[in-house]
Amino acid sequence: MTPPPTYYPKDNQKKHPWRLMAPQAGGGVVGIGIDIGGTNTKIVALNKTGKVLKEYRFKTLPALGYPNFLKRISQVVNLWKNILPGDNFAVGVGVAGDINSADGIIRFCPNLEKWSNIKLAADIRKKTRLKCFIENDANIAAWGAYVLYLKKKYKNGIAVTLGTGIGGGLIINGKIYNGSGGSAGELGHTNIYPGGRKCHCRMRGCLEAYTGSYAIINRAKEEIKNIPAFIKQYGLPKVKKIDTISLARAAAKGNPIALKIWRDTGTYLALALSDMVLVFNPEYIVFMGGVSNASKYFLPAIKTAFAGQKIKAPFKKVKLIVSKNPDLGCYGAAFYALEKNRQ
Amino acid sequence: MTPPPTYYPKDNQKKHPWRLMAPQAGGGVVGIGIDIGGTNTKIVALNKTGKVLKEYRFKTLPALGYPNFLKRISQVVNLWKNILPGDNFAVGVGVAGDINSADGIIRFCPNLEKWSNIKLAADIRKKTRLKCFIENDANIAAWGAYVLYLKKKYKNGIAVTLGTGIGGGLIINGKIYNGSGGSAGELGHTNIYPGGRKCHCRMRGCLEAYTGSYAIINRAKEEIKNIPAFIKQYGLPKVKKIDTISLARAAAKGNPIALKIWRDTGTYLALALSDMVLVFNPEYIVFMGGVSNASKYFLPAIKTAFAGQKIKAPFKKVKLIVSKNPDLGCYGAAFYALEKNRQ
Repeated sequence: MTPPPTYYPKDNQKKHPWRLMAPQAGGGVVGIGIDIGGTNTKIVALNKTGKVLKEYRFKTLPALGYPNFLKRISQVVNLWKNILPGDNFAVGVGVAGDINSADGIIRFCPNLEKWSNIKLAADIRKKTRLKCFIENDANIAAWGAYVLYLKKKYKNGIAVTLGTGIGGGLIINGKIYNGSGGSAGELGHTNIYPGGRKCHCRMRGCLEAYTGSYAIINRAKEEIKNIPAFIKQYGLPKVKKIDTISLARAAAKGNPIALKIWRDTGTYLALALSDMVLVFNPEYIVFMGGVSNASKYFLPAIKTAFAGQKIKAPFKKVKLIVSKNPDLGCYGAAFYALEKNRQ
Repeated sequence: MTPPPTYYPKDNQKKHPWRLMAPQAGGGVVGIGIDIGGTNTKIVALNKTGKVLKEYRFKTLPALGYPNFLKRISQVVNLWKNILPGDNFAVGVGVAGDINSADGIIRFCPNLEKWSNIKLAADIRKKTRLKCFIENDANIAAWGAYVLYLKKKYKNGIAVTLGTGIGGGLIINGKIYNGSGGSAGELGHTNIYPGGRKCHCRMRGCLEAYTGSYAIINRAKEEIKNIPAFIKQYGLPKVKKIDTISLARAAAKGNPIALKIWRDTGTYLALALSDMVLVFNPEYIVFMGGVSNASKYFLPAIKTAFAGQKIKAPFKKVKLIVSKNPDLGCYGAAFYALEKNRQ
């Protein structure tokens, strides 16, 4: 990320050299993508060829309330609208939560102080006079990966976001598939063990209850005997708790318990994903999100499980891809704005 | 089904009164649908309004070989082409097996004497000079149900065929979704219990290993103590084995073991289907196939399981529908021909 640009109040902008930049050739269309997370919000502006024109990141601070957040995000968008070369801007937003994409409404957002029934698209439109399109963050990240890496070769695929929770996004016939009520892709809560481990969602046996980062760490705590020694040996400096980073570092050093935990993670993921391959027959599965940095240690178990399936054809077809790009959320949102703006 | 029409050799057809029928207004387009099963083949001709013009059924007799079958089916199609009013015929075929729909090829058909790599669409085209489109039978039945009952209200749904095996067909954005290699919808082999009951496919824990009719019967045999008495009390006359019909009749009479077996069947189906609802967010799930005649006894358990889910929205949205129409296969194939012919 580039450092945040200095903020100039609107009536001072004439003095700012950015205003003097000549519009670039072909730079007429600009997609502004916003990725709203519980902690950070990232925002990026791309031209239609995908070139990054601006990037910015700030604390979401949901506790200050939605009106405050709306004001801050609109200020950045309005600034960029004024300083960037372009005459056709559109805004795309990815939000972690239950989103009604068709009406541009955040229905419910557990990580954003339970903001609910927020007309985000209409509000941004009002404040910036730009078209605005919103989507679930997992779908948006799926779209980001699709446009950046996959679009040239594939039409149907699944994106799996591996983080605290497990997200899923479907691309079908080259478009985001968000289902009949906008809630498709809830891969994290598909059942892998009836009656199994308890999940954050209060059901038992969900994929997330085995492979969300909190679940991986819980499994590690059960299996590692001397936890302080483990942290001392494999943890990053100053980190006092086991995390997926120390588990990956331990696996890299050949620690057998860490290797087993990652192998099991792959086996659990394969239980859910093999069902998806059988039903969807996708061309690819792309893994993203922080935990996918440890793909080296869990991917072989997924490949083994897929190779052991008896209905061979769809498992031979599917490509397993890992993206370690941490900005797929805001890139995806910008691509989504460009795509929707074209329609 | 109407009785089979008498067959008139081609050069005698002028004498037949059907030839003298004036073409009906709006009857220019005719879809001929063929449903090839391991035992019977059904064929139907529909006009573009869905009116049945002809129906016919004959033994598939796959042991006589594919050329023999091709000859017989082409004779019926050619006869109808000559006697039915219409100037734009197209043929649609549903086949139980691994189908390459794009190229019109039967890749492998376990129930049809292992016919493999058969260019069915091209062969029918050669013999009848009509366009021919083929698809997997579960997808075709899904399409039949969609056009007959669901098209006016819905765009995304899942069809579940309950028979010896469990089939699945997906309708996405108002079209059959057959995946990247044509094998989407393999719902029967999604895993509901890791390491569970052995399935025909040689994996363990597949949905089909719990809810295919053979599996239901196996579970019944384990639970019913006096099987001959059970058959005597609930079986159809002359039937010597437990089947899903006697189990449904026993449930209708309040037999607690039969009621439990159907309830469990619903619970098992719900384990796989709730994952599908979470990932697909469909508008409907339609049940079809012989075993769906017992829906009264297994559907309540599915509804209970759906109501107990913690992510409520997609489960509130989805409608559960049962079709007891045994001819969705050939109707669907005819509708498919009409649809493809339009494109």
